[in-house]
Amino acid sequence: MTGDADITITAFQTVPDFARGNVRDLVVRWMLEEMGRPYRTHLLDGNEPRGSEYLAWQPFDQVPALRDGDVGLFESGAILLYLGEQDEHLLPRDPVARAKVVSWLFAALNSVELPVRPVATLPLFHGDKASTADAVAALTPLAEGRLQRVVDALGDNEWIAGDFSIADIMLIFLLRTIGGELAKRYDSLDAYIERGCARPAFERALQAQLDDLDTETLTLEGA
Amino acid sequence: MTGDADITITAFQTVPDFARGNVRDLVVRWMLEEMGRPYRTHLLDGNEPRGSEYLAWQPFDQVPALRDGDVGLFESGAILLYLGEQDEHLLPRDPVARAKVVSWLFAALNSVELPVRPVATLPLFHGDKASTADAVAALTPLAEGRLQRVVDALGDNEWIAGDFSIADIMLIFLLRTIGGELAKRYDSLDAYIERGCARPAFERALQAQLDDLDTETLTLEGA
Repeated sequence: MTGDADITITAFQTVPDFARGNVRDLVVRWMLEEMGRPYRTHLLDGNEPRGSEYLAWQPFDQVPALRDGDVGLFESGAILLYLGEQDEHLLPRDPVARAKVVSWLFAALNSVELPVRPVATLPLFHGDKASTADAVAALTPLAEGRLQRVVDALGDNEWIAGDFSIADIMLIFLLRTIGGELAKRYDSLDAYIERGCARPAFERALQAQLDDLDTETLTLEGA
Repeated sequence: MTGDADITITAFQTVPDFARGNVRDLVVRWMLEEMGRPYRTHLLDGNEPRGSEYLAWQPFDQVPALRDGDVGLFESGAILLYLGEQDEHLLPRDPVARAKVVSWLFAALNSVELPVRPVATLPLFHGDKASTADAVAALTPLAEGRLQRVVDALGDNEWIAGDFSIADIMLIFLLRTIGGELAKRYDSLDAYIERGCARPAFERALQAQLDDLDTETLTLEGA
């Protein structure tokens, strides 16, 4: 989505195959599509370090980063919060509802992602090492325990913290991308991910990320 | 600190030895001490699950959680942000400065903690397994890379995002607690941690956590 956009986000132009449709700029694209906000993309070469100018904006040399006039942000959680302040549906103004949404936003990025990520990434990046299966087995119970907590908290609700919010955008992205096969084992999480991904804004965001990627892919070594 | 406190936070009364002075309620205690806000502690038994009433407040059965009237929060990052809204020094109102602080708050809890934590916790919880050393070796380069990014971003500055802020409280806590020996290898991070821990508010918060702990400790199996 472009047009008379005042918001710029960064994304990669070239990524390894496994990352297509999974790069974190998807979170911000989804949010902007939910808001109906136009945005420009500043596409970066995934093949090499981005240089000091980009590091001043995004100190970890990752995507996404967002610029809105003088305001520069990095970390998808910080960007969701910033944009949420401009949309009372996606980040409610009522203090009690807001507290729940913000708590779940942080929970997605810390209490959930933290134990789940190594279970997903160790086989991906270190699958050739004999020790990886043992390490994954050691780390899996904690990851499963945390996912069960999400199942319990979600219960029969449609969304994690009241109405659909920035907390759902973050949590569904992470369960879909990082949770992978582990998350899909829980029927209610599988259905929750599907509910999120069926939203037209998600579908537009996903297509936009794919459209911005080169057809050529990176090898893992180059990522 | 008690007195006519309207804020209640949760903390553990009994923890394993390695967790003394390192439990995450320290982050919130530090923040409240910086603000000069009195608070009450609701102490929980670390020996057994806390039950459904606590899970409705803190879905991951962890500490800290905060209650302020009708508002309930969990996740230390969400709590810092909530309290920061009441203190313009620790969370600046200027949009450009605020964006930087909030970005670093999320960065501490995600881009920094995420790769660093397994390097610290695998030896602690799975040190008896032969595969742990290999897994730690596989995960260490990413953790070191992220810490180097923090070193570069900090440069010669005293604090990570302008004046001392909620971002420093979170980042220094994590570097001190999770970063451990890995973080101390970087002189500037070591000095940054020391600057934070020399603040009277940190010292009061640490003492308050230690004072609330039983002298008896938990074994790791019971944690």
